[in-house]
Amino acid sequence: MRTRAFYLAACCIVFAATLSACGPVGDENVGHRSKRAAPSLADRKACRPGDVQPARRVDTTQRLSDLRAAMVNQSLDAFIVLSDDAHGSEYPSARDMRRGFISGFTGSAGYAAVTGTQAAMWTDGRYFLEADDALDCNWILMRMGIKDVPTLTEWMVSVLNASNVVGADPFLVPNSNWLSVESDLKKGNITLTDVTANPVDIAWGADQPKPPMSNISALEIEFTGTTWEEKVSDIRAAMISRRLFGAYVVTSLDEIAWLFNIRGSDIDFNPFFVSYAIIEVYEQNNADKIRLYIYDKARRLTMDPSDSETRHKLHEHLNTSADGQCQAKETFCVEVVDYVPENVTGAVQAVVNNDVNNKVWVTHLCNYAIYGVIPEAQRVQERSMIALSKAQKNEVERKGMENAYNRDSAVLIEFLAKIEQDVKSEKRWTEVSAAMDLKNMRFAAEFNRGLSFPSISGVGPNGAIIHYQPANDTDRPITTTETYLLDSGGQYLDGTTDVTRTMHYGQPSAYVIECYTRVLMGAIDLAVMVWPEGLYGRQIDMAARAPLWSVGLEYRHGTGHGIGAYLSVHEGPGRISLYHEPTVNDETLYAYMFFSDEPGYYEPGQFGIRLETVVMVEPTNTTHKFGDKQFLRFKPITLVPFEPNLIDYSLLSKRQIDWLNDYHKLTQETIEPLLTTALAKDWLKARTKPFTDHSTSAAHNTPGTMAMLVMAIVSAFTFRM
Amino acid sequence: MRTRAFYLAACCIVFAATLSACGPVGDENVGHRSKRAAPSLADRKACRPGDVQPARRVDTTQRLSDLRAAMVNQSLDAFIVLSDDAHGSEYPSARDMRRGFISGFTGSAGYAAVTGTQAAMWTDGRYFLEADDALDCNWILMRMGIKDVPTLTEWMVSVLNASNVVGADPFLVPNSNWLSVESDLKKGNITLTDVTANPVDIAWGADQPKPPMSNISALEIEFTGTTWEEKVSDIRAAMISRRLFGAYVVTSLDEIAWLFNIRGSDIDFNPFFVSYAIIEVYEQNNADKIRLYIYDKARRLTMDPSDSETRHKLHEHLNTSADGQCQAKETFCVEVVDYVPENVTGAVQAVVNNDVNNKVWVTHLCNYAIYGVIPEAQRVQERSMIALSKAQKNEVERKGMENAYNRDSAVLIEFLAKIEQDVKSEKRWTEVSAAMDLKNMRFAAEFNRGLSFPSISGVGPNGAIIHYQPANDTDRPITTTETYLLDSGGQYLDGTTDVTRTMHYGQPSAYVIECYTRVLMGAIDLAVMVWPEGLYGRQIDMAARAPLWSVGLEYRHGTGHGIGAYLSVHEGPGRISLYHEPTVNDETLYAYMFFSDEPGYYEPGQFGIRLETVVMVEPTNTTHKFGDKQFLRFKPITLVPFEPNLIDYSLLSKRQIDWLNDYHKLTQETIEPLLTTALAKDWLKARTKPFTDHSTSAAHNTPGTMAMLVMAIVSAFTFRM
Repeated sequence: MRTRAFYLAACCIVFAATLSACGPVGDENVGHRSKRAAPSLADRKACRPGDVQPARRVDTTQRLSDLRAAMVNQSLDAFIVLSDDAHGSEYPSARDMRRGFISGFTGSAGYAAVTGTQAAMWTDGRYFLEADDALDCNWILMRMGIKDVPTLTEWMVSVLNASNVVGADPFLVPNSNWLSVESDLKKGNITLTDVTANPVDIAWGADQPKPPMSNISALEIEFTGTTWEEKVSDIRAAMISRRLFGAYVVTSLDEIAWLFNIRGSDIDFNPFFVSYAIIEVYEQNNADKIRLYIYDKARRLTMDPSDSETRHKLHEHLNTSADGQCQAKETFCVEVVDYVPENVTGAVQAVVNNDVNNKVWVTHLCNYAIYGVIPEAQRVQERSMIALSKAQKNEVERKGMENAYNRDSAVLIEFLAKIEQDVKSEKRWTEVSAAMDLKNMRFAAEFNRGLSFPSISGVGPNGAIIHYQPANDTDRPITTTETYLLDSGGQYLDGTTDVTRTMHYGQPSAYVIECYTRVLMGAIDLAVMVWPEGLYGRQIDMAARAPLWSVGLEYRHGTGHGIGAYLSVHEGPGRISLYHEPTVNDETLYAYMFFSDEPGYYEPGQFGIRLETVVMVEPTNTTHKFGDKQFLRFKPITLVPFEPNLIDYSLLSKRQIDWLNDYHKLTQETIEPLLTTALAKDWLKARTKPFTDHSTSAAHNTPGTMAMLVMAIVSAFTFRM
Repeated sequence: MRTRAFYLAACCIVFAATLSACGPVGDENVGHRSKRAAPSLADRKACRPGDVQPARRVDTTQRLSDLRAAMVNQSLDAFIVLSDDAHGSEYPSARDMRRGFISGFTGSAGYAAVTGTQAAMWTDGRYFLEADDALDCNWILMRMGIKDVPTLTEWMVSVLNASNVVGADPFLVPNSNWLSVESDLKKGNITLTDVTANPVDIAWGADQPKPPMSNISALEIEFTGTTWEEKVSDIRAAMISRRLFGAYVVTSLDEIAWLFNIRGSDIDFNPFFVSYAIIEVYEQNNADKIRLYIYDKARRLTMDPSDSETRHKLHEHLNTSADGQCQAKETFCVEVVDYVPENVTGAVQAVVNNDVNNKVWVTHLCNYAIYGVIPEAQRVQERSMIALSKAQKNEVERKGMENAYNRDSAVLIEFLAKIEQDVKSEKRWTEVSAAMDLKNMRFAAEFNRGLSFPSISGVGPNGAIIHYQPANDTDRPITTTETYLLDSGGQYLDGTTDVTRTMHYGQPSAYVIECYTRVLMGAIDLAVMVWPEGLYGRQIDMAARAPLWSVGLEYRHGTGHGIGAYLSVHEGPGRISLYHEPTVNDETLYAYMFFSDEPGYYEPGQFGIRLETVVMVEPTNTTHKFGDKQFLRFKPITLVPFEPNLIDYSLLSKRQIDWLNDYHKLTQETIEPLLTTALAKDWLKARTKPFTDHSTSAAHNTPGTMAMLVMAIVSAFTFRM
């Protein structure tokens, strides 16, 4: 999957020094800064008197007026609205889409600032057109990366007066962003203050979506392989070994879901539930405490499992009473507390107050509200203790991932076989109807719990839009004359899937074939890599690009993201991304991490190609051994054949052809038994036929073999003489 | 060339946070920390009563006693001695080898600290054995990277008392190191102070080598392509465009040599002269001033050129009077001043005092003495304005480099042809005699001005020592049973060369052949790369390693360093090094930079293989074009054939074989006319014969061609019927 927030995750959430430097790598607009004056309302689309407003614009006049009234009540001269929730989530819940509400622009990347008289929103090049359409004429559009566009703090310093006060919601701003904004504003003698009642929420009023309270269920041991008690023990052991006593605070929703082996559906496509967790560890371990903060605990703790695969009620799973109390003090009991942000900061405050030697460990993603209550001397800010363990799947999770991918690949193959037949017989399918049909097929698969992200289903030029989402007003039919890029995935109890294939059902042009072939060559060259333990993904990403580079082509996204086991489709702390700026949270590629291998090529206005195969890092025994270095390689997990129609085999090396044949053989053997229709079986068989070009295979015969071939021909004729 | 200081340059000089974290990447000892107590005299070799002292030990008792007396005179409780000169040189002059004098250890990497009662020296794993031999029993050996070995500042804090004073020579410590040491010592309430009279120099006394005052000569325009006036104009223009008025201070010796088109020989293998330069630029340009600080200016300005290719005396070249004065105020006159460190700091001080708006621009390598006199508000610390221009060779320099490499390749080919014949006919050559002979052959070549570094000439196991230098006590004969690694280069008026080839004159083992072939495959895979402008070398280095990785092998050094034009054999600001930690001085690969392409493989105690070919980055027109991205590629500049005896062609891809054949063809065509002996011509011809494996070339025939071949055979026989 190659969607919206993937570009930004590490950059904007964690390290934006000034809330200005973020955006997709290689964004077109960054490279070509044109000379222009500072942005104003004058450069907005359709904002002159009498202009017809674009259909999708929301009138924000009343909203801004309500916001400003709330700001006045709190003596704020300005207010900053980011896109983040309190947990650094890639996808926030509807309730947390405050920037979308106040500005009318709902794209994934953007942040806003509102003063008493002006409102401005910053976004990057992917969204310039969409934001100009969506924002009404109350808003200045700040096109990030364009010359003379100020950063948020530069703009605030320019429009505010010295000793003005700017507010922000400390729960909704990562601590590093807060500190950098605070320091930049201070240069203009402006104060950043934390608000206690978010004025956007006040303006939103009764229309703001309620906090999500989806059903949540334990994920049983046959899916997780490790109990939550073991996971908590590991955290305790790590703190004890470093003699850090106090609290470890977990704010990321995927980490909490993983830690306690629980899943929910508070956020679309993500099996999470809005929550915090605090693990307290002391030298006297009878003071140890495990606390989980969730909404609607009474119902959620005691409801009968809504999931047919779950045998325990939540309170049983967490070893607690029906009301979330740990009555008889047991080591492994999770006290469940109602989710009230101030309760969480209060609990942290209590830990630091109880003993000046107590420490509180928070991650770099921790929001400023929690970070801010911990005195510096008691604060340990390091990378997450959970992220790396979570990414290295245990044996049960690995098996689960393989099973989930096999079922998911079977679904996709059934679907692709049907689509190809239908399109060739002129039955109408479009991007939208195809995505809908595939969704329904996935929903019917064993252990399915929805999609893992909105499918990207793009025909021809729509495939060239990297974050394209099919919609009625842009829908294109799938035909025999254009490429069809399909990037989709599902959530299953035993794994999260993500797969992209690009098809062509007619006669593609030589150029499209070359592009597809080179994308495939790159995907294979990465897949066959063997490398010494200890490398970052950015150090090997190049392998996937070189075949495109050699003819002057390139793609503007990373080659691979991590992926969770019934968790997030984009999972850190590893990635395979050449252009990724190193961050403190990065980890090297470890055995049993799962990554996408997804090079692509996009010809704007023409076509898009992406081939995404999920692979697992595994140790390998090499022929030789340098020192006692462990070497690693990738094992393919996604098993869906490639498009023979788009491959120019003459470009492939022997090694690439061997990989392709092996991959197709494995796919045929593994997935064929899971298919239910003859159509799909035939389709799979045809697509996985080994490529045996005689001239190419002759390449690797020895001269002796060649001579024998000639001799054989000669003999044949001699015999006939 | 893959020698000692290359590993450390960027790391230790610029960014060592605590003077502890530096050392070669992947050093064996870092990875395997054993449990041991803090180092003391007790763990030194041959330091128990009655032990026989190793022959190479120097008795430092008197030296240390003299040093301590000088320390007492200056009220110092301890003194720090680094390896640096005042100019951040990779190779300091003999006068600057203070750490070697005081400790007796003369290896390239190490630093020392001496208190009233103790003396300790830190070095990395490459030098543990050598340092233990060289240091006498006054010294504690600090083995960097080993568990429980303290950093310099940790050790000082542990052995000194609060409010003690530690001295260091501010001219001999880069500013970033000074600040980090100062801050670390402050934690122990210890003060770092700058000494005015270096106590090591006092202890050294009359035996300290005098400042180097080699002849220096202008390098004429036919070698430089750009006048120094044009180069200075570029600096002025850059400062004016940023409205930075004041001074630009140049401290690096290669930058001064390049800027003024002058060369000297103050430092072995480096055509430099000890100097500073200050370019003053003001809004009123009649105040502009260019100053050069050198030793012995009277003689050097007026002497007849000692170089036959030089037409101008130095003062004429610099447009100044015989005594270095700019009498009639001209824009382009270099005022030449005697090299007195305090004069330089005084001049900088004057610039900052004259006007509070004046700025002084220094680089990150600038020593602390100069850095320290500039108030923070007037200091601009950025990367060098010279380094990038210098690395991107102009047309004349490019042509010069090619000519120098062609002549140098011809010398090496003559030499290798002779050695091979002699060794095969059992005439005795050794590492030492061969290196000596090659040196004399280089000295006889046109425009030669010496070697560019001490030749690495290593037979069998000596080849596995990456920084090996042939010496009488380790000398091995060159035979038909072991590999011979030869890494050497020359300084020429038109270019600096550096080339490595590895030979075998008998029947190598299959393992050695596989290793050589994979090193060659890596060298080729890097050489054939095409990549989009804007990448760092570390992003593509992997191409050279993948063929070794695939069988579990690796080499522990970068793949390529920049190289100068009659300048330094190791030149920034680009490099091709996978494991290089990014620094603020790094630049991406630009067109017309020159790099070595030198993968290797080293089997300790057995053999070493390295293949080093210098390549030039050049723009390339790709078949397609993504956006308006310019793509780059490498052009090979070193033209010396590889060792057919060590190549397993069956491992090579078609693309690798094509490159090899093309390279050998180019080598034959270019170098053959420069050869003088029939022996060398025959040798070259034999070694550059194209490889044509029939089965391999058939690989890339189309099926059609194959069919025609069969038809032709059939026809032949039919005809005979």
